[in-house]
Amino acid sequence: MKKENLAMLCDFYEFTMSNGYFKYDFYKRKVYFDVFYRKVPDNGGFAIAAGLEQVIVYIKELHFDDDDIAYFRSKGIFDEEFLDYLKDFRFTGDIWAVPEGTPVFPNEPILTVRAPAIEAQIIETYVLLSLNHQTLIATKANRIVRAAQGRAVLEFGSRRAQGESGAVLGARAAYIGGCAGTACTLTDELYGVPAGGTMAHSWVQMFDSEYEAFRAYCELYPDNPTLLVDTYNTLRSGIPNAIKVFKEVLLPQGRTKCAIRLDSGDISYLSKKARKMLDDAGLTECKITASNALDEKLIRDLMMQGAQVDTFGVGERLITSSSSPVFGGVYKLVAVENAEGDIEPKIKVSENAAKITNPHFKKVYRYYDNESGKALADELCVYDEVVDDTKPHTIFDPNATWKTKTLTDFTAKELLVPIFKDGECVYESPSIQEIADYCRGQIDLLWDEVKRFENPHDYYVDLSQQLYQIKNILLNVHKM
Amino acid sequence: MKKENLAMLCDFYEFTMSNGYFKYDFYKRKVYFDVFYRKVPDNGGFAIAAGLEQVIVYIKELHFDDDDIAYFRSKGIFDEEFLDYLKDFRFTGDIWAVPEGTPVFPNEPILTVRAPAIEAQIIETYVLLSLNHQTLIATKANRIVRAAQGRAVLEFGSRRAQGESGAVLGARAAYIGGCAGTACTLTDELYGVPAGGTMAHSWVQMFDSEYEAFRAYCELYPDNPTLLVDTYNTLRSGIPNAIKVFKEVLLPQGRTKCAIRLDSGDISYLSKKARKMLDDAGLTECKITASNALDEKLIRDLMMQGAQVDTFGVGERLITSSSSPVFGGVYKLVAVENAEGDIEPKIKVSENAAKITNPHFKKVYRYYDNESGKALADELCVYDEVVDDTKPHTIFDPNATWKTKTLTDFTAKELLVPIFKDGECVYESPSIQEIADYCRGQIDLLWDEVKRFENPHDYYVDLSQQLYQIKNILLNVHKM
Repeated sequence: MKKENLAMLCDFYEFTMSNGYFKYDFYKRKVYFDVFYRKVPDNGGFAIAAGLEQVIVYIKELHFDDDDIAYFRSKGIFDEEFLDYLKDFRFTGDIWAVPEGTPVFPNEPILTVRAPAIEAQIIETYVLLSLNHQTLIATKANRIVRAAQGRAVLEFGSRRAQGESGAVLGARAAYIGGCAGTACTLTDELYGVPAGGTMAHSWVQMFDSEYEAFRAYCELYPDNPTLLVDTYNTLRSGIPNAIKVFKEVLLPQGRTKCAIRLDSGDISYLSKKARKMLDDAGLTECKITASNALDEKLIRDLMMQGAQVDTFGVGERLITSSSSPVFGGVYKLVAVENAEGDIEPKIKVSENAAKITNPHFKKVYRYYDNESGKALADELCVYDEVVDDTKPHTIFDPNATWKTKTLTDFTAKELLVPIFKDGECVYESPSIQEIADYCRGQIDLLWDEVKRFENPHDYYVDLSQQLYQIKNILLNVHKM
Repeated sequence: MKKENLAMLCDFYEFTMSNGYFKYDFYKRKVYFDVFYRKVPDNGGFAIAAGLEQVIVYIKELHFDDDDIAYFRSKGIFDEEFLDYLKDFRFTGDIWAVPEGTPVFPNEPILTVRAPAIEAQIIETYVLLSLNHQTLIATKANRIVRAAQGRAVLEFGSRRAQGESGAVLGARAAYIGGCAGTACTLTDELYGVPAGGTMAHSWVQMFDSEYEAFRAYCELYPDNPTLLVDTYNTLRSGIPNAIKVFKEVLLPQGRTKCAIRLDSGDISYLSKKARKMLDDAGLTECKITASNALDEKLIRDLMMQGAQVDTFGVGERLITSSSSPVFGGVYKLVAVENAEGDIEPKIKVSENAAKITNPHFKKVYRYYDNESGKALADELCVYDEVVDDTKPHTIFDPNATWKTKTLTDFTAKELLVPIFKDGECVYESPSIQEIADYCRGQIDLLWDEVKRFENPHDYYVDLSQQLYQIKNILLNVHKM
């Protein structure tokens, strides 16, 4: 891909529609779109928002080059006036979004756009693509990291990623979700995610013997070398050679930090055998890394079986979120400003109740219990509603309105923060380390019940009384 | 991603190893690596090779910039001499590969590299990433296209793709696999895959009524418009409004080409109802497009149930190959040239028999039956073996050596063609249309038994007698 400007990474229908909005003079009309999702991947209890930084870069650079205009002209269906308009096209609207690393739940806006119709339409594809991809991987990474219970998890999946940005930005998202590092050098260079790695089987095969390969490596990198021990036979050749070399090369230098990597076979069995062999040889500080078709389920089982693994290297099942490889974020029109500047809420109805949208320009509150600090519920409100957290506040389940709960001694926090205002970026992007730290902190504020892998508790995402009424009025208008 | 040169999209261990190869003077030593895979996604019978064109672009542009060198220096583990070497780094080796669009089977080389050790190592990650990604999507697309039995399949998945190149190059791969077009504008602009698209629900919501939205669209695009009919109620509102507008706007102009799109609900039921309503209204030329969570299994069922769908729009399940989202191509050392220039075959053994590699610098023959034209078997041979297809030729199953077959009246064709020679590209890349056409033709040469979705026949990938013997000798050397 040779384009830095990704304006053309856009579904073609955005342009046919935009040409029409231009023609019918809708293009200055301000519209409101929400990004939200309906289902957590892997049937988990929450997702980790990610991908906003790339949306910001995209919006800042958004424009159409002469060759793009020429491409459109060649299609023979676009008005010249519209193409003229595209020449000077810039994003002039407003965007609000939840910061990267925030746990997010189904049916709540994670990004809201307010912009002239064409602008809001043209950014749809990329906004969804970026948020869907990185949220998917951050969410999966967090599951795997939680399964590892404090052992380090490294992202190793570039070669199996779905394309270049799948690898590079996937590794970025994995770090947000809690991974300790990546094998992808470019992600380190561009985004500061620490990259590392030692040897492949080819290193071992390149030498006349495994012993020589290990010895050469330790002499070159005596500072905490990791030796891959499964090229020929893990227990009979790999580990004995590693022990021999560590003793011959490292110990005389007073070095005790080293590691072996298991990349095949039964990790539970081999890691325990390896631990014993290393300990018996006095190499109690030698760590064990494992990296063979791992995911959160296998890691959870390995931990239950007492596998002696200090670091997990996770590849294809993380970088593609292979057990649940789609994050289904959608981008739905929720309101339109009329000629007088009034905001008219819009709804998309469906025979499938789960697909009915929450209309209107909204804000999202998250309520925290002051005693435990834990997140209690989120509430979608109309944009100008204000919740006073010094007073008791009653929320209710919009799908079972008799279920109410009155919050007292709580703190209300708005989730969506301003990102763009009149086309200008008003958000100072945190560093990747700040995002990862923030994510860890936010997840600590979720109840364990929400974090369960199987059948987690459904976190409450409620509608305010006012929003609920607006939704019902619109549903009645479009009664089926 | 701001880098055109993807040299740094590389696992970090390639650089730690390369620094070692440089130090130990292995770096001029020529080595041979094969790319092959072990398992067809979705338990299918074959894969469609794709992604070579991006490998070619990558190799041509491969170099390290000053900021890359500075990045390596900052790590504090690389020798200055090695960094000097990287400054002038270029690929100087040879590459052979199967052309894009070729059906390929497990355990046969689809790309072979012969290059100095460091060069061969550094390209590993990107070569695998590109081939794995596009082969995955081309293979999935071909399954979906075969399920549709001649009805057009369009790729609609950008917004759910795993990153930018997941969308853009995924759409390219989908076209190789047989899709008729894409929604991704950038894939059309960059690669010439025809892009199309008409309207989203937001178009319908933007107008005061569905009727006005449809009418405005048809007036603007009277040449074969597609109207999305499920914003409010497909049967009671969407289709009647579409019929009304087609009659009012198109028929008076003498136009009969038009279409509706169903994007929710039961496609089988709705498409039959829609067909009847359209036919009853005299709109027999109006086509029906369907696009709701489709994949090859659902399309096969819809076809069996007589769904009246002319075009399938397939999104997330194609662009992520969601039911099988990883193509497991590997890159394995198969031979090393010694100081005298002799080729020494290498093997990677494993306790898991399926993971034992086929050693040596190889060629791959595909044998075609002269009578039926069908592909009979592939055979891996040592690089300098020559099969004479004017004489009977006996092949055998390497896993069951008593199973032999003697081919007569056949044509032998080499699958791997030269791509780079001494670092120069010697391959003229076909156009995307030529690749797609070639793919269609090659798939016609496979027996139906290999194309079955469930439990397909295992196509034969055999070893020549000579290669089989070399493999067994090496296995005995590394006996466990």
